[in-house]
Amino acid sequence: MTFAELWREFEPLGRDPGTGGYRRYSWTPADAECRAWFTHQAEKRGLTVEPDNNGNLWAWWDQRRADAIATGSHLDSVPDGGGFDGGLGVVAALAAVDLLQKKNFSPERAVVLAAFTEEEGARFGVPCLGSRLLTGAIDPQTARNLTDDAGLTLAQAMTAAGLDPGLIGPRDDLLGAIGAFVELHIEQGRALAPLGAAVGVAEGIWPHGRWRFDFAGRADHAGTARFADRADPMLPYASTVLAARQAAEQTEALATFGKVIAEPGGANGVSSAVRAWLDARAADEATLLDTVTTVRSAARRFSAEHGVTLTVRQESYTPVVRFDDDLRDRIAAVLGAAGPPPPVLPTGAGHDAGVLAARLPAAMLFVRNPTGVSHSPAEDADLADCEAGAAALAAVLEHLAGPARG
Amino acid sequence: MTFAELWREFEPLGRDPGTGGYRRYSWTPADAECRAWFTHQAEKRGLTVEPDNNGNLWAWWDQRRADAIATGSHLDSVPDGGGFDGGLGVVAALAAVDLLQKKNFSPERAVVLAAFTEEEGARFGVPCLGSRLLTGAIDPQTARNLTDDAGLTLAQAMTAAGLDPGLIGPRDDLLGAIGAFVELHIEQGRALAPLGAAVGVAEGIWPHGRWRFDFAGRADHAGTARFADRADPMLPYASTVLAARQAAEQTEALATFGKVIAEPGGANGVSSAVRAWLDARAADEATLLDTVTTVRSAARRFSAEHGVTLTVRQESYTPVVRFDDDLRDRIAAVLGAAGPPPPVLPTGAGHDAGVLAARLPAAMLFVRNPTGVSHSPAEDADLADCEAGAAALAAVLEHLAGPARG
Repeated sequence: MTFAELWREFEPLGRDPGTGGYRRYSWTPADAECRAWFTHQAEKRGLTVEPDNNGNLWAWWDQRRADAIATGSHLDSVPDGGGFDGGLGVVAALAAVDLLQKKNFSPERAVVLAAFTEEEGARFGVPCLGSRLLTGAIDPQTARNLTDDAGLTLAQAMTAAGLDPGLIGPRDDLLGAIGAFVELHIEQGRALAPLGAAVGVAEGIWPHGRWRFDFAGRADHAGTARFADRADPMLPYASTVLAARQAAEQTEALATFGKVIAEPGGANGVSSAVRAWLDARAADEATLLDTVTTVRSAARRFSAEHGVTLTVRQESYTPVVRFDDDLRDRIAAVLGAAGPPPPVLPTGAGHDAGVLAARLPAAMLFVRNPTGVSHSPAEDADLADCEAGAAALAAVLEHLAGPARG
Repeated sequence: MTFAELWREFEPLGRDPGTGGYRRYSWTPADAECRAWFTHQAEKRGLTVEPDNNGNLWAWWDQRRADAIATGSHLDSVPDGGGFDGGLGVVAALAAVDLLQKKNFSPERAVVLAAFTEEEGARFGVPCLGSRLLTGAIDPQTARNLTDDAGLTLAQAMTAAGLDPGLIGPRDDLLGAIGAFVELHIEQGRALAPLGAAVGVAEGIWPHGRWRFDFAGRADHAGTARFADRADPMLPYASTVLAARQAAEQTEALATFGKVIAEPGGANGVSSAVRAWLDARAADEATLLDTVTTVRSAARRFSAEHGVTLTVRQESYTPVVRFDDDLRDRIAAVLGAAGPPPPVLPTGAGHDAGVLAARLPAAMLFVRNPTGVSHSPAEDADLADCEAGAAALAAVLEHLAGPARG
């Protein structure tokens, strides 16, 4: 099947009819539909699907379990995200297998397709949860106790989905069988379009993290409590939002508050608490930590001015990721053989490839995003560019898994 | 029964074991428990309970339907509100009936106890919804279409509770049968404590309203979208929160953002929209509208700076309420007969008595709030003050409904 034919089947899964955005949260019915579709497609191609106990799916082209070439991406989405973010890399991997099988390519090393779970951290708060569990970057007990907004733990959600959360944790055997991982992903940002390139190669991933700010004040009546008597956490929160933007502008970093919960949330009451999540990223770790320190200090000062108690907790942190130089050069050479050398791009987004890069050679391909919009129903890509991405991935797999390697 | 005996029964209803606050939202099981308890207590005293089709309950001491003296308050609460706000006036009304029946008081006019619904507007967004429907201050069709946060309409919620939402609307017959309404309420604020008074009388209610601010931007990826390419609605929202406080400080008004919803709400995404509710109150209507105009203009300017679209909609508005001078003087005289003249206080809080004041003589008694905290689990009152409030209410009812009146 071509990429477009596969995409027609995959595209509707988990799409919200109201917003047009996707809600492929891990361990929900939408997620189960995506998994079932991937498993069905992999098996149709003669691949053997082996779950890894952490929620990630692995579809093996053959039975050799050494120096395998892995490719894939994640199935889950942010709330009302686009359909390409994650799904593109999984569907392109299937399309690449079809291109290779059509030309009777016989791999010298196994090719294995991966579909990761909870990459966005949209449900349980920790991005790349599936690959972090796989590599041991998060403690299984910590992971089991993670909760969603409804208070359900990961353990409860996995049990409800028919899995045994007692089995999650690192899989060194699996990682030891893989020689390289290549993730194809839609570009997040707009660097390829002005260069006229459909496909690019990743340079590295900015260090990034998520910090939870809890501003605790005192609930009161909005119509009777004098300003002087209030401890209203909404005011230091508002000042912190503005301070975060200003601090990030000064350091050329990125800082965003996209999630905020006011409690108790009555329109005629002063909030008892405001809980907010800061997402911050920068070109290097010192700049990132400087920026976050500036925001924390400002938030603490604003809170004190309003009699509000501030607690800041780091929920996740990913150091800078440098992808494998040798693997990137080989991929660039394969892509450059058919045309001009592909652009090499840094990115501020985290990816499973970045987590795996700590354990094995990893690389990424990006497919052009004409508007640059991401994590939004407005995210889009040309199907022709996606086909080009699948063809590029096929060429890379052919090179890495084929006899020409090394 | 004494107030304290009644309170012991009523106090646990609808209390959240986690926060200690109350969640007596209209047409929920907690609300049904409160209604059932009130109905049972009223019937035990020989009163006839007649619902008015709008969700309000009326318990008549006798069958005369002319020039009746009404008293009562509301059963619902804000999210995690205190137990006295509303409930105190209903329970004190029952305790006052007990005090009068104990002394074999035989009223010349009917005494009727009222328990209003959705006074806080916590579920359907319009405060004093029950009394507004009763007096015709809100159109029944508009009311039926009001929705809660889950998207359920008032009509659906009433139907689920076994009522016919087709019957809601003004009840001129009922209003015509009432000669005066006296609402006893816990003080919201802290004016009585420094005066050493357990009970005060209301002067009037500040004009107040609720405005919904919709900041519409564009969802994007927090790790890749450059600041210059973003339309992040969180930034103009934050600036508006600070501008509202500043504007209200200058006009000596009150302005509060206590409810905010960021969409789609992902921690690693730029928001597509931020929806927020401004509660504003002031000593007079010109000051109130000036303050809100200043906030709207500032919000529009901040939104334009960020490529964000702003829509502001007035959700409710209550003009200044002046209570009936004659009724207030009579009440002050009754209370003053047993001690020093009671303090007369203005308030920024809306009340069903304020809505009824447009149609008939209305008045309010306040019971001392030692900390002034309201709309919070920390709201409190001394039971001795509540007993004094019930006794004061009994004296007022005896005067208004008894032979000495006029």
